[in-house]
Amino acid sequence: MKRVYLFEEGRADMRDLLGGKGANLAEMTHIGLPVPPGFTITTDVCRDYMRRGRLPDDLMDEVREKLQVVEQRVGKRFGDPENPLLVSVRSGAKFSMPGMMDTILNLGLNDRTAQAMIRLTQNPRFVYDAYRRFIMMFSDVVMDIPKKLFEERFAELKARLGVTQDTEVPADALKTLVEEFKQIVHEHGKEFPQDPSLQLEMAIEAVFRSWNNERAVIYREREKIPHDLGTACNVQAMVFGNMGDDSGTGVAFTRNPATGEKVLYGEFLPNAQGEDVVAGIRTPLPLDALRDMMPEVYRQFLEIADRLERHYRDMMDLEFTIERGTLWMLQCRVGKRTGRAAVKIAVDMVHEGLIGRDEAVLRVQPSHLDQVLHPHLDERALATGEYPLIAQGLSASPGAASGRAVFDAKRAIERGKAEPVILVRPETNPDDVGGMLASKGILTERGGMTSHAAVVARGFGIPCVAGCEAIHVDEENALFTVEVNGETLTVREGDYISIDGSTGNVYLGAVPTQEPEISPEMMTLLHWADQFRRLRVRANADTPKDAAKALAFGAEGIGLARTEHMFFGAERLPIVQEMILAKTAKERREALSRLLPFQREDFLGLFEVMRGLPVTIRLIDPPLHEFLPRYEDLLREVLLLELTAPDSPQLAEKRRLLQRVEELREANPMLGLRGVRLSILYPEIVEMQVTAIMEAAAEAQRRGYDPHVEIMIPLVGHVNELKVVRENLERVAKEVMAHEGVQIDYKFGTMIEIPRAALTAGEIAQEAQFFSFGTNDLTQTVFGFSRDDAEGKFLAYYVEQKILPENPFVTLDRAGVGRLIEMAVRAGRAARRELKIGICGEHGGDPASIEFCHELELDYVSCSPYRVPIARLAAAQAALRHRVAVTVDK
Amino acid sequence: MKRVYLFEEGRADMRDLLGGKGANLAEMTHIGLPVPPGFTITTDVCRDYMRRGRLPDDLMDEVREKLQVVEQRVGKRFGDPENPLLVSVRSGAKFSMPGMMDTILNLGLNDRTAQAMIRLTQNPRFVYDAYRRFIMMFSDVVMDIPKKLFEERFAELKARLGVTQDTEVPADALKTLVEEFKQIVHEHGKEFPQDPSLQLEMAIEAVFRSWNNERAVIYREREKIPHDLGTACNVQAMVFGNMGDDSGTGVAFTRNPATGEKVLYGEFLPNAQGEDVVAGIRTPLPLDALRDMMPEVYRQFLEIADRLERHYRDMMDLEFTIERGTLWMLQCRVGKRTGRAAVKIAVDMVHEGLIGRDEAVLRVQPSHLDQVLHPHLDERALATGEYPLIAQGLSASPGAASGRAVFDAKRAIERGKAEPVILVRPETNPDDVGGMLASKGILTERGGMTSHAAVVARGFGIPCVAGCEAIHVDEENALFTVEVNGETLTVREGDYISIDGSTGNVYLGAVPTQEPEISPEMMTLLHWADQFRRLRVRANADTPKDAAKALAFGAEGIGLARTEHMFFGAERLPIVQEMILAKTAKERREALSRLLPFQREDFLGLFEVMRGLPVTIRLIDPPLHEFLPRYEDLLREVLLLELTAPDSPQLAEKRRLLQRVEELREANPMLGLRGVRLSILYPEIVEMQVTAIMEAAAEAQRRGYDPHVEIMIPLVGHVNELKVVRENLERVAKEVMAHEGVQIDYKFGTMIEIPRAALTAGEIAQEAQFFSFGTNDLTQTVFGFSRDDAEGKFLAYYVEQKILPENPFVTLDRAGVGRLIEMAVRAGRAARRELKIGICGEHGGDPASIEFCHELELDYVSCSPYRVPIARLAAAQAALRHRVAVTVDK
Repeated sequence: MKRVYLFEEGRADMRDLLGGKGANLAEMTHIGLPVPPGFTITTDVCRDYMRRGRLPDDLMDEVREKLQVVEQRVGKRFGDPENPLLVSVRSGAKFSMPGMMDTILNLGLNDRTAQAMIRLTQNPRFVYDAYRRFIMMFSDVVMDIPKKLFEERFAELKARLGVTQDTEVPADALKTLVEEFKQIVHEHGKEFPQDPSLQLEMAIEAVFRSWNNERAVIYREREKIPHDLGTACNVQAMVFGNMGDDSGTGVAFTRNPATGEKVLYGEFLPNAQGEDVVAGIRTPLPLDALRDMMPEVYRQFLEIADRLERHYRDMMDLEFTIERGTLWMLQCRVGKRTGRAAVKIAVDMVHEGLIGRDEAVLRVQPSHLDQVLHPHLDERALATGEYPLIAQGLSASPGAASGRAVFDAKRAIERGKAEPVILVRPETNPDDVGGMLASKGILTERGGMTSHAAVVARGFGIPCVAGCEAIHVDEENALFTVEVNGETLTVREGDYISIDGSTGNVYLGAVPTQEPEISPEMMTLLHWADQFRRLRVRANADTPKDAAKALAFGAEGIGLARTEHMFFGAERLPIVQEMILAKTAKERREALSRLLPFQREDFLGLFEVMRGLPVTIRLIDPPLHEFLPRYEDLLREVLLLELTAPDSPQLAEKRRLLQRVEELREANPMLGLRGVRLSILYPEIVEMQVTAIMEAAAEAQRRGYDPHVEIMIPLVGHVNELKVVRENLERVAKEVMAHEGVQIDYKFGTMIEIPRAALTAGEIAQEAQFFSFGTNDLTQTVFGFSRDDAEGKFLAYYVEQKILPENPFVTLDRAGVGRLIEMAVRAGRAARRELKIGICGEHGGDPASIEFCHELELDYVSCSPYRVPIARLAAAQAALRHRVAVTVDK
Repeated sequence: MKRVYLFEEGRADMRDLLGGKGANLAEMTHIGLPVPPGFTITTDVCRDYMRRGRLPDDLMDEVREKLQVVEQRVGKRFGDPENPLLVSVRSGAKFSMPGMMDTILNLGLNDRTAQAMIRLTQNPRFVYDAYRRFIMMFSDVVMDIPKKLFEERFAELKARLGVTQDTEVPADALKTLVEEFKQIVHEHGKEFPQDPSLQLEMAIEAVFRSWNNERAVIYREREKIPHDLGTACNVQAMVFGNMGDDSGTGVAFTRNPATGEKVLYGEFLPNAQGEDVVAGIRTPLPLDALRDMMPEVYRQFLEIADRLERHYRDMMDLEFTIERGTLWMLQCRVGKRTGRAAVKIAVDMVHEGLIGRDEAVLRVQPSHLDQVLHPHLDERALATGEYPLIAQGLSASPGAASGRAVFDAKRAIERGKAEPVILVRPETNPDDVGGMLASKGILTERGGMTSHAAVVARGFGIPCVAGCEAIHVDEENALFTVEVNGETLTVREGDYISIDGSTGNVYLGAVPTQEPEISPEMMTLLHWADQFRRLRVRANADTPKDAAKALAFGAEGIGLARTEHMFFGAERLPIVQEMILAKTAKERREALSRLLPFQREDFLGLFEVMRGLPVTIRLIDPPLHEFLPRYEDLLREVLLLELTAPDSPQLAEKRRLLQRVEELREANPMLGLRGVRLSILYPEIVEMQVTAIMEAAAEAQRRGYDPHVEIMIPLVGHVNELKVVRENLERVAKEVMAHEGVQIDYKFGTMIEIPRAALTAGEIAQEAQFFSFGTNDLTQTVFGFSRDDAEGKFLAYYVEQKILPENPFVTLDRAGVGRLIEMAVRAGRAARRELKIGICGEHGGDPASIEFCHELELDYVSCSPYRVPIARLAAAQAALRHRVAVTVDK
């Protein structure tokens, strides 16, 4: 097996074997660009090294053989006392891991070759500087001697000389320093190796070893790069950008990576090595400076950049060095970019004829759109360091906001009229909804992704950071405290804070926010995506406002309208509570009859906005106690009254309420009296809802809209539940139609969100005209995880420890939940061929989960309005990735 | 299709078509016993009638044809003015539904045939009495005229005559009454039909109609008899037991149905019709009286009884009538019996050579054993009516108990020393355990089958009625109130109450209890059962005492020892709480090290008792907050202290505790931080437990027992959870063995109680040496039911409304939960051929579920000690019912 590839022997598509850097160096060499010669030791060798703990016995023979070719190319010899070749030894894995692994420059220097270099360059300062750098780097990386010792010695030297800049240290002093550095090595019981071959072998081994250093492992964890890939090792002839004013080094993107604008974008540092750019010691100049300083080199570089972009058919990230007027390309790779730039570049490249529409659609990452679609905190403002990060919670509802902290819903309403406020609560409850709506953002100390705060915030599109357990909210004194760098920080009402609901970060101060923008390029891209995808995309929307937003983002219907969210309105909640506290079905019906007009208006609004598109309305789902005051709060009030006003009528009233709340309380509300179970025990609630739906549809039809109603019954586990409720509600629907004298297109269906429903989907499909997988609850029940409890208490740890590969509430668990879904789809379709099947859990907006839905041939996914564009893109990408016969409209 | 069968045309095995009564009348006719001739109209006709709402057009032609045969047999003619035949028309379904449907006697009487009867019998009183009964019965059943009107008229007559007994009313008066009765019919716009053929047709239709009368429907609901079976209709020549002292009627069992003793057992009423026996107007005589009064008839009856028992090979329930010295058999059927009798009869019949051992095993119902195996309330005492039934709750832990009500755990301990007490609580918590152990029984107002009270009670074998929401416990005043027949009854501390944990009934007063008895016959029967069954039977037992009981009942190992139950002991709970409140892992380990000796002793005890048999120990399962005081109680205490002693150190202490409890509290504890999740986050707890297990096993081995340890990790949902925990604990186990210098036979396995575990069982089997299905939790998660909430709030309603066919926590749901189990068994065995598979949920003691386990070829079921005999029997029955090749050891 070949273990060492000369650059001219490799190609860009050999990344697995040669790593990204090696493959691209090979590609550039192959197409004739000026690349300093060199070779790549394969990732196979690294994997072998990891297994056996040492380099293969005859590896160095192969290395020496390739080194001879390099020597011939550059006309120098490695270790030659007259005309020595120096090399760099660099890591380079399949996926870029910038700065995570080790690199050694100037290898091949020793006391004798240094003298030869001085003779050749006539520049002793340059040579001693290179030598001292090499010893330090080599000692640190290869021999495990702390870098700090060398840095301290250099600092002492500068102090002694009374200079501050490295460049001010004269050659003599550097020469002495080199000796001192060697002495440091000696003091560690080691000797700095004078033999260049030994240097090389040790450096190669160190590069391979660095694959498993701590920071590389952590980086791979975070970026989800497999640990068993290994790195390649590139050995390349050194070129020097620090040999005078006709030398220099730079980096460039072939287009603007922030905006996507088609213009070369980069930085250049004259008389410098790459290291200096990274170290940030000198401020680089814009690329234009190169045009002025070395116009011919600049023209050559422009040509190369253009050629590479056309060759790779993508925006490229380039590194180059100029040694005495000669341009050398040291690296090229596909450039990282912002979401905005990704969209623009993809669309522009189609217009330029570089790529096809399918390729453009595949190139933009769904996460790119996510960046663009929400208000976000200004990155540049954050980079100033003016706004300290003070805590991190769960990213419960995306988007960012800044405002004055308030600790009470009423205060939020008051202050929120005049200025932006962020509502900070231990956790929220129905009484807080008014205040939540008046706030720009919500921050809670407790509660998970399905906590009241999170659900309401997502429902209303308000940014929210939930379960931020680092903060301690003191409601009474209207403040929260948080430990920051060992000190207790207190944030009081009126202090500015900023939250990022997409990351869970909380900052002190009013960080400027940037509004989302839907560029014409994005419209174009999504339009192309729509032509490729097979899955339809609907939105989860409860209000006409949300529905309008969803429609603007391209939703093709509403996949989930949560009727109970409508119960929380200020005028409505008291009626809802009255209904719940009613002692008889008659009283309950009376209260419901007063709710009916509200619900009818709600539905009419949805039908108007969605004219002609299907609207799936879920009947009441949560347990009734969610609409009542919290047990703990009531208990507190009652106890207080017992001690202060034992005979007050208020106490009697509160006691009555407490008793009802106690009756309704549940040990595990998630698995309690909710969904279809409520509809069976209290049919009058859903009778009212269906009456409101059908009356609204009748009115919508009269007004010339074309309502298509899908009534969804949640939490069904046994076909009989659906049967009983559906039969009753079909009756109600028919009565309303008869009364209104209209025919409405309506369907009855169910959510599949309980394992038993999935397991008996064949039976359930007998009674359901559509299925919608409620993957949030299905994930909870299949895993036996209460999301509220799991996310704060152990799920993060599970993901961190790789016990679970992903958070299953974010990306659908294929092996467990997915398997059940697959069974249900198969059985459901077998029982009813025309069964419409969708998904309306949060996974409906997650690209990996959307791909799974595509594979299962679902009819649609439904997600929050803001994620509709992401779903459109992800659905198209899934279709493109799984296409068998390629028929692409270029 | 033949629709009417003469008795001589039918057989006993035609119950589907002829109903039980008809088939047995046919059988008796067939074997030559004296049965009044008659015929049966099939259940087919009834089903046809239910579909079409009227009798088949030509049915009456067929009826008349058969009637002619009957006329020939008895030498009388139906409707004949000289020698009329009277008939009875009776329902008779496949399954006995005593008294639920309608019967008409003396049909064929009209003004003319009555005169003929008078001539023939010379007994006008008898005839008018029969006629007035017939009109009343016919009007009520066939013509829907309220019976009450007739009864009132009869009462008026008796008042006028100044008599109290029916028999005292003379013939004349009865004659007048007949006319008055006809007048009543007339007043309802109808006429009593004089045409016997019309009477017959109307009566037949009425019998079929009565299949769907309300009480019959309710009865079928309760007894789980399908509604579509229909009833047959038997038309039979009347014989009269009320024709003088040489006449009479009686019922008999061929053996004592209470004890099983082989002796004819019954009652006889001279000069009476069956109706009189049922009405209870006269007190019947023991059968012996017949021997004295009519020795020849008695001898003939004895012979018939013996013949029928040998013919049916079972204990029979017989009805007979003697008309003027002639014995007629009116009914025979297999007799109902108590559990004790069922066992004795089955075993005796094997010894008598009547049936085989397999048949004996199949004949005893598992519910029969259940009756016998628990202390039960004395039925006779209850029948006196002295002990009113005051409430009904959930049958949370079987067995019965009487004692003085106490409302506080401490009081239970105090009073429990001197006299039996029943602990009554709103619900229980860990602080109550001492008091629970000191009580004979437990009664709670709230909480389901898995509430703390229920779980602890079952664990310790204490009878318990939980979730008895009819009672209102007032802890402060040490009393409970309950509405009984519209009045509020108050039970105070010290009042006697009795509970039946097998039915959920609560009685006022000290009902005597009867202790369970394992008769030699039961030992024999179970020994036979063991020879047929393939499933092994283990017990769920946490203490040596329970283990010993289980062993005595025939358990072949422990399938579930719940280690956390051991945490509740009085000496232990404080240490457990200290462990939970510990701030560091070090403090936690310190507390755990003090728990270790307790746990080691616990395990050693189990190994000693079970010597040589496998012991499955489940590592800690419940969430830690279960071991701390209840949040609500603490909150109450803190609030009180805040108002009354705001500066007390006590308040600070309670606040600290409250804070920790708040941190640990969960929205849905059932789906929260428990089971393997705890073991991952706090590995030190299970490390202690495994250390204790292995040290105990080592000691047991030294003492000459032969421990076989199966360590079970609960709540696994992903193979990685098991892998991580198992690897750590294997290390601990090996360290202990090395330290102790022994080799222990141990296995690591997991509970399959989360849907995802079942769905990915193939992967999980890679890491598990055994599976035990925890069907309680699996049912909860597959249905999305929290048992605590569901049972009280909607499950009962679901079962009542037939939305669910069964309570899935009692009988395993095959379609949903069962399907998952089947998938898991298949995948688990495919991945690991020698995988041992059992079930340890409560279904392990339910016969229908055991049959399912047999079908799935599980290795064992595990159930509570008291249910071990039931499981042995049910497992044998399952094996017998599913045997392909019959190889029976008779």
